[in-house]
Amino acid sequence: MKELPTYTALVDSFRKLPGIGTRSAERMANAVLELRKEDALEFARAIESAKTKVHKCPRCGLYTEEEICEVCEDNSRNHDICLVVVSPKDAVAFEAVSAFRGIYHVLGGLLSPAKGIGPESLNIEGLKSRIKEESIKEVIVATSPTLEGETTALFLAKVLEPLQVSVSRLGYGLPAGSSLEYADPLTLSRALEGRKKL
Amino acid sequence: MKELPTYTALVDSFRKLPGIGTRSAERMANAVLELRKEDALEFARAIESAKTKVHKCPRCGLYTEEEICEVCEDNSRNHDICLVVVSPKDAVAFEAVSAFRGIYHVLGGLLSPAKGIGPESLNIEGLKSRIKEESIKEVIVATSPTLEGETTALFLAKVLEPLQVSVSRLGYGLPAGSSLEYADPLTLSRALEGRKKL
Repeated sequence: MKELPTYTALVDSFRKLPGIGTRSAERMANAVLELRKEDALEFARAIESAKTKVHKCPRCGLYTEEEICEVCEDNSRNHDICLVVVSPKDAVAFEAVSAFRGIYHVLGGLLSPAKGIGPESLNIEGLKSRIKEESIKEVIVATSPTLEGETTALFLAKVLEPLQVSVSRLGYGLPAGSSLEYADPLTLSRALEGRKKL
Repeated sequence: MKELPTYTALVDSFRKLPGIGTRSAERMANAVLELRKEDALEFARAIESAKTKVHKCPRCGLYTEEEICEVCEDNSRNHDICLVVVSPKDAVAFEAVSAFRGIYHVLGGLLSPAKGIGPESLNIEGLKSRIKEESIKEVIVATSPTLEGETTALFLAKVLEPLQVSVSRLGYGLPAGSSLEYADPLTLSRALEGRKKL
């Protein structure tokens, strides 16, 4: 029994998604064959229209269907303060909790000499021009507390220094609702460093 | 920031696949937005053409792009012996190891009173007609060694009895390459029952 060409093509497409191996791709392709026809065709149209209509905001890099994204257009937000995120989905996470009412800037990655990702691969020049043109006063770097995330944050703090802008990173410490006894030593020592007066 | 309608539609489509929750669906939708445009459009076309061209073989239930599937059409295979599988992908697993050169019959599920799946939900009538019309002489029931799988196998053996066809199930025992010390008690006792003279 030979593989069906249309099936193979579908498996190959699923495999292009990150974290999807051959087995998962086959399982999903089988699931597509089991979908109702209208659901499958809707799926195909959803991919096509998402990819055709959604693009990155030329200012901040968030996804939008408009010319400029909703956050950049929103004058009720504080345009003095800019949260620098690695990818659009990180901004979505902040928006979901309404914890931030400033604007965003998508970096597009983290510095990683090992992976050959240098400053020129990230949207740092864009951030510098925005700070000048949009007169941003405060930059919060929201990278993960990993080696690459911290390296990137420190690098940004250094290159933004001449621009007279306040640069901070997110607070490190115990995650909300966590149990002290399961916290790792590094988190504990950071929580000590980051202690706050009551 | 409101969710983008095209993005939401794409997440909803991914969520229709089994085992994909909201988080995974969002991750995949993000990945689609990051795909190269031609890859994304190819993905959309792959879904559409798989769903349009691939259908179930009216005889055995395997997936095919032709009127009758390749296995049913293949006269070099032994049409006397029929392997009854639950889904087309189980047949693909047997084909991958070339362990079987007969024909297949897709049952479409397993008996499960708990889930309300009775004999009428499975393609048992189709199997009975095929045994008569195609003069199948031997039926091997390839269901998993689970409660539902065994119930289904025993039920099939009973309803096929009047048709004068030999019915067997797959052998149970130790899986190839496994270590005896990690085998569970049920597998060990089945391996004892199913011992073979050397």
